Amino acid sequence: MKKLSAEIDLKVRFSETDAMGVVWHGNYLKFFEDAREYFGEFYKMEYLDMYNNGYFTPLVKTEINHKAVVYYGQAVRVKATLTQCAAAKIIFDYEVINLTTNEIAATGKTIQIFMSEKTRTLELIKPPFYEAWENQQVWTQI
Amino acid sequence: MKKLSAEIDLKVRFSETDAMGVVWHGNYLKFFEDAREYFGEFYKMEYLDMYNNGYFTPLVKTEINHKAVVYYGQAVRVKATLTQCAAAKIIFDYEVINLTTNEIAATGKTIQIFMSEKTRTLELIKPPFYEAWENQQVWTQI
Amino acid sequence: MKKLSAEIDLKVRFSETDAMGVVWHGNYLKFFEDAREYFGEFYKMEYLDMYNNGYFTPLVKTEINHKAVVYYGQAVRVKATLTQCAAAKIIFDYEVINLTTNEIAATGKTIQIFMSEKTRTLELIKPPFYEAWENQQVWTQI
Amino acid sequence: MKKLSAEIDLKVRFSETDAMGVVWHGNYLKFFEDAREYFGEFYKMEYLDMYNNGYFTPLVKTEINHKAVVYYGQAVRVKATLTQCAAAKIIFDYEVINLTTNEIAATGKTIQIFMSEKTRTLELIKPPFYEAWENQQVWTQI
Repeated sequence: MKKLSAEIDLKVRFSETDAMGVVWHGNYLKFFEDAREYFGEFYKMEYLDMYNNGYFTPLVKTEINHKAVVYYGQAVRVKATLTQCAAAKIIFDYEVINLTTNEIAATGKTIQIFMSEKTRTLELIKPPFYEAWENQQVWTQI
Repeated sequence: MKKLSAEIDLKVRFSETDAMGVVWHGNYLKFFEDAREYFGEFYKMEYLDMYNNGYFTPLVKTEINHKAVVYYGQAVRVKATLTQCAAAKIIFDYEVINLTTNEIAATGKTIQIFMSEKTRTLELIKPPFYEAWENQQVWTQI
Repeated sequence: MKKLSAEIDLKVRFSETDAMGVVWHGNYLKFFEDAREYFGEFYKMEYLDMYNNGYFTPLVKTEINHKAVVYYGQAVRVKATLTQCAAAKIIFDYEVINLTTNEIAATGKTIQIFMSEKTRTLELIKPPFYEAWENQQVWTQI
Repeated sequence: MKKLSAEIDLKVRFSETDAMGVVWHGNYLKFFEDAREYFGEFYKMEYLDMYNNGYFTPLVKTEINHKAVVYYGQAVRVKATLTQCAAAKIIFDYEVINLTTNEIAATGKTIQIFMSEKTRTLELIKPPFYEAWENQQVWTQI
């Protein structure tokens, strides 16, 4: 399988904690989004690029597996890995490392589809601009 | 001054607490928004009514005064009071009561202006549809 | 399998929408939490009951499947269904119905474990107080 | 008056936007918190330092003045300025600059008090550790 990764370091916000003193579980989806956006910036394929080409890429599935807690005052490294996919889908896997403890705090996955802005219908094949972008990347074979 | 009030009861969400075990201070703006929307429903002047009449009503000022904490598991009553105003502004005052302790947890204020959807400019006089709505309300003189 | 359900109706908050004009995907975890808490209230097994018995029940897995969007101004019905489980786990399935369109907006799942407050370790068998609660419920056989 | 400032650049998160396509007004309090925390890191007086000295510093007042919108994809610079204060209060002023347009998007203010962790009561005079910290800083006279 062909993979492409990017990682970003984030400091936990006080507003992201909950009454247990740890990051509220749902906020990991914000960490995933941050990593996905950083990936987009890094590899030059951002939400706005999608949009300017006439597509939305809504999420159809998200999944988080919690392994260890992250406390306020700790930082995390979030790695987003795109797997090249024959279908018209964007599949990312995530790993969140607690940089203070070196533990894996969470792993996860998101799946996005392509939706035409005009017709608001699901695209069954990958848009040409996206396939062109895929062909320009230097993927890692795993 | 002429006043109009509505109040709504809310249960604190776990995701709204922070690592101090209490409602994170910024979430009171969500409580204010909930009360403002309930006010809109009750008196039939909602965001979507504004929008359908060609206006946005963005917030230009918000203010929160914190008096006492609210813990997870507690409920609050949020009262939103509109003060009739000669200028083209929507001014609400808020009071958040902790229903478990009967303490005032917070007070606050928001100011909104009218902005034409077409021109994206500030309206200097109240839109006629809004003034018509004002005239239909039974205000309390204070 | 033995099931127990509760459902709650929620109005979408303006602060829960995103720049696409729909509920931001991560906010469904707040809807799930609301439904789970309402379930707890209804069947008398709340977070605080767990806590008072010496247990936390952290989430170890969450999953959301998005089927249709929900716009600001729409309401949703969130159904949380607990499946009785031999292992020391709390497994909920969720269904989010857009009450304006009658479409299924999302489905999902959460898995929680029991953690002793004192030892901060995973419980391998169900705590007695929880098993006693299970035995008092009127489950639906599906 | 004696002032001390720090500034931080932030990229707007997609989850921070609302259905108007702009940053939801309440999220500016997260920007303020980010700037305040960065200030704390920079000048070595963080929440955890307060806590380790036996104090909480809860917010008693927050205020936001909105001047211009910030869209998704734009970045902001948030400047937090502490004003030295004779009373036992921590007073910050904020300025949020939209780095894409160079406009001031918002200004604001927060006031925090000192609360003893043990007695949970308001401190009427500044804690010695905090006054010592104040005396070590190089303030700007304005």
